[in-house]
Amino acid sequence: MSGSAHHTDAHSPVIRARRIGIDTYQEPVVFMRADCHVCRSEGFQVQARVRVSCRGKSVIATLNVVTESLLPIDDAGLSEAAWRELSAKDGDALEFAHPEPLESFSSVRRKIYGLELGAGEYQAIVRDIAAGRYSGLELAAFVTACAGDRVSLNEIVALTRAMATAGSTLTWPRHPVVDKHCIGGLPGNRTTPIVVAIAAAAGLTMPKTSSRAITSPAGTADAMETLAPVALDLTAMRRVVEKEGGCVVWGGAMDLSPADDILIRVERPLDFDSDGQLVASVLSKKLAAGSTHVVIDVPVGATAKVRSPGAAKVLIEKLAFVGSAVGIEIRAVQTDGTEPVGRGVGPALEARDLVAVLKGDRSAPADLRDRALRLAAEVLRLGRKTVGDGISEATRYLDSGEAWRKFQAICEAQGGMRTPPMAPFRKDFTAPVAARVQAIDNRKLARVAKLAGAPTSPAAGLELHARTGERVERGQPLFTLHAQTSGEMAYAAAYADGHGAPFQLEPL
Amino acid sequence: MSGSAHHTDAHSPVIRARRIGIDTYQEPVVFMRADCHVCRSEGFQVQARVRVSCRGKSVIATLNVVTESLLPIDDAGLSEAAWRELSAKDGDALEFAHPEPLESFSSVRRKIYGLELGAGEYQAIVRDIAAGRYSGLELAAFVTACAGDRVSLNEIVALTRAMATAGSTLTWPRHPVVDKHCIGGLPGNRTTPIVVAIAAAAGLTMPKTSSRAITSPAGTADAMETLAPVALDLTAMRRVVEKEGGCVVWGGAMDLSPADDILIRVERPLDFDSDGQLVASVLSKKLAAGSTHVVIDVPVGATAKVRSPGAAKVLIEKLAFVGSAVGIEIRAVQTDGTEPVGRGVGPALEARDLVAVLKGDRSAPADLRDRALRLAAEVLRLGRKTVGDGISEATRYLDSGEAWRKFQAICEAQGGMRTPPMAPFRKDFTAPVAARVQAIDNRKLARVAKLAGAPTSPAAGLELHARTGERVERGQPLFTLHAQTSGEMAYAAAYADGHGAPFQLEPL
Repeated sequence: MSGSAHHTDAHSPVIRARRIGIDTYQEPVVFMRADCHVCRSEGFQVQARVRVSCRGKSVIATLNVVTESLLPIDDAGLSEAAWRELSAKDGDALEFAHPEPLESFSSVRRKIYGLELGAGEYQAIVRDIAAGRYSGLELAAFVTACAGDRVSLNEIVALTRAMATAGSTLTWPRHPVVDKHCIGGLPGNRTTPIVVAIAAAAGLTMPKTSSRAITSPAGTADAMETLAPVALDLTAMRRVVEKEGGCVVWGGAMDLSPADDILIRVERPLDFDSDGQLVASVLSKKLAAGSTHVVIDVPVGATAKVRSPGAAKVLIEKLAFVGSAVGIEIRAVQTDGTEPVGRGVGPALEARDLVAVLKGDRSAPADLRDRALRLAAEVLRLGRKTVGDGISEATRYLDSGEAWRKFQAICEAQGGMRTPPMAPFRKDFTAPVAARVQAIDNRKLARVAKLAGAPTSPAAGLELHARTGERVERGQPLFTLHAQTSGEMAYAAAYADGHGAPFQLEPL
Repeated sequence: MSGSAHHTDAHSPVIRARRIGIDTYQEPVVFMRADCHVCRSEGFQVQARVRVSCRGKSVIATLNVVTESLLPIDDAGLSEAAWRELSAKDGDALEFAHPEPLESFSSVRRKIYGLELGAGEYQAIVRDIAAGRYSGLELAAFVTACAGDRVSLNEIVALTRAMATAGSTLTWPRHPVVDKHCIGGLPGNRTTPIVVAIAAAAGLTMPKTSSRAITSPAGTADAMETLAPVALDLTAMRRVVEKEGGCVVWGGAMDLSPADDILIRVERPLDFDSDGQLVASVLSKKLAAGSTHVVIDVPVGATAKVRSPGAAKVLIEKLAFVGSAVGIEIRAVQTDGTEPVGRGVGPALEARDLVAVLKGDRSAPADLRDRALRLAAEVLRLGRKTVGDGISEATRYLDSGEAWRKFQAICEAQGGMRTPPMAPFRKDFTAPVAARVQAIDNRKLARVAKLAGAPTSPAAGLELHARTGERVERGQPLFTLHAQTSGEMAYAAAYADGHGAPFQLEPL
């Protein structure tokens, strides 16, 4: 019964690798002809999971079937993720096999049947997810099985620990290690660099990793990058934190809770409200980053992620329970989630706002300053750097210029402070009549900023000159559009002039 | 606030359609550059759902992101399904928008939260699924939410009705309209044409629609096609049934319960054991086909779909309850699911087996004959064509030649009877020593038959000469491999000679 495996048999034609140029994000996909000998003999169907091997490396990929117009019968196209993981070269001989069964998925089936899973089961599931062994469909099944309050608090703890330990974990020589996080974004809500500057000025350790924009016109890392380099590796980040006590760097390359990024890719399109996944997502990143004390900003509003004070209360209780179980002290704060914050929307424009607050400019947006002070006060209380409510200490660090000097020092340590770029193309949009601003549509606001080029063009975005409830005269500017090219300006302006106008005006 | 939508604005470059040659089965997919103006401005990310419009037609597609090596920035590639539904031509101008919210998915969210859904909700969900509005991830979430005994019997009834009415429904002037179905396939278990011939000979109406192979070496439609045309349209099928009382045609083009085909595409890779979906799948097809009395063959065995008599009992009770609620009388029969049935595996070889049974050849496989008689007897009882257990009547129709004459007449009515093709390449595999057959591996058996070319090459497959428990002498043939080309023969033989040998022998 010995003999060669069929795929190495002399009679079977060799299937060769081809980089096909399709980016399926983290999911490796292989594109093959349904009539090729491998699909026929192995019985591989559309969406089958296939083990693809190439010169000693192997990856589990999802099969997409192609017609003869795309690929010859003896070629297999590889998605960017599969290409990367196999280190393949065009023309490499590939081998194919049925993948070994995904053992941890039997735990997902148990969860589907309503059973409580143990810590070991969550570890196995998360390890397989982080290794890319789950297909999109399997991820959707796992996320669904855990949604709808079907995971107990103990299960959220197990899931959080499993996610944190599936990637890199940071440790810091000092204690406490403070952090802050905002649940669901508000346009312009760029408090983080201000909070870091105040906390570090007060002597706390705050090694902040931030994300780039996923669907918004700017993430914290995008805004910070207009002020200093943010793509630091772990060694460089440590050096900054040792020297200055804090940093604001991009966390994307640090492999913190990598399963989280993969799960988010499925949760976003499904749009589930699952407290369990949300808590595990936030706290696994913090646990992996070595944080011991975390302030969580929970904006509450009709169009925010958390829609009511009651829902916020339930979520905050879960965050506190799980945080305590994994050794993180949590202080969660409900904030107003109905309005954009600050004046600028877009990386450089948001950076200008936060610098104005740090410098104490009289024109600095007061709402951004107030929110940053409130969150910084909670960080100081949590880090035992105040005996009161923290507001007066936080205000003192800001108003004395200590926070601004600390922020400049952090930027220098990260590689050198920069001046945010200014867009060459600017256009004012004015009120056609005297009116009261009835509402500002956050979604349209974000759309206009992205049409103008944000966040890819860092100077692009818009500046708000009026807010909800304010009275504007005829011809008074409502907002200024910023763009780096005339084409983007024309494109965004056409949308803002048309049905995409973000301001709703009530003529007086 | 009037104005042109941005995607028709003069400043935005036009995105043009390109047929990209990727077959994603029923799911429409659009392939675009992440840096194209549409993705940037609309904020479309990988896996986003996008409404794509082309000259008045529109479709909701899933976005895959491509690099510049595959497509220029102003081109959008369309999968085969999207191309078909849009009736697109190369170079057509496309428009893109966020799709309207998928209202019925809020019912899926309610189901995820454990609530019981009403008939109207299942109708809306199934209508959207049949219309292709659910992405793969959304389908996986729905299937998961319904798995694990989370749907009540009343919900299975509602789902069954919704699935049946989402496509075409057939009505027949005569009553009863009998049918049979087998849950999970066994290699060679080709009883259907024999049962149809006996039932029609007895005067019953049995308009049988069958499927082609999905993962097996032959489906009933594939085997039947070697004896007569099976790709009949509804009018032609009606003519056959009116004239002869029965038919065996391919149901794939008849749009019976189209949501079922879409759900199966997701259920198969997830491999869920969900009685609810199984019952709705089987009975929605029967309800849509206009069947009133259905015999269901439930093979039970360790490697069969139903693994224990207890599980079979639970499933049969659900089938009976739901059948009764939707007006179908069900008789479910547990049968042996441990062994392949008959001698041939592959379309033509299975056709030869069933013709041998119908003709009463002394060499006809007794196991196939016995199973067909048992199921035909149940059909006769259900159709009130016997006062006893039905076995003697069924046997009489078979042994008298009436069933064989009826089968020939059905084949003629379907377009003319054919002789199944014989493969030009045949090779015997013999026992290397005197031995007892300990087991036959159904999975390897199917693999060898598919390597030889089945079901695409109708004459390909294999013939079994020994069965489990039998004693074989040295040099005695175990099976004969059939192939239509020397390449396929060499390829299948290499596998069968190697670790793919389907016979497990115990030397004596």
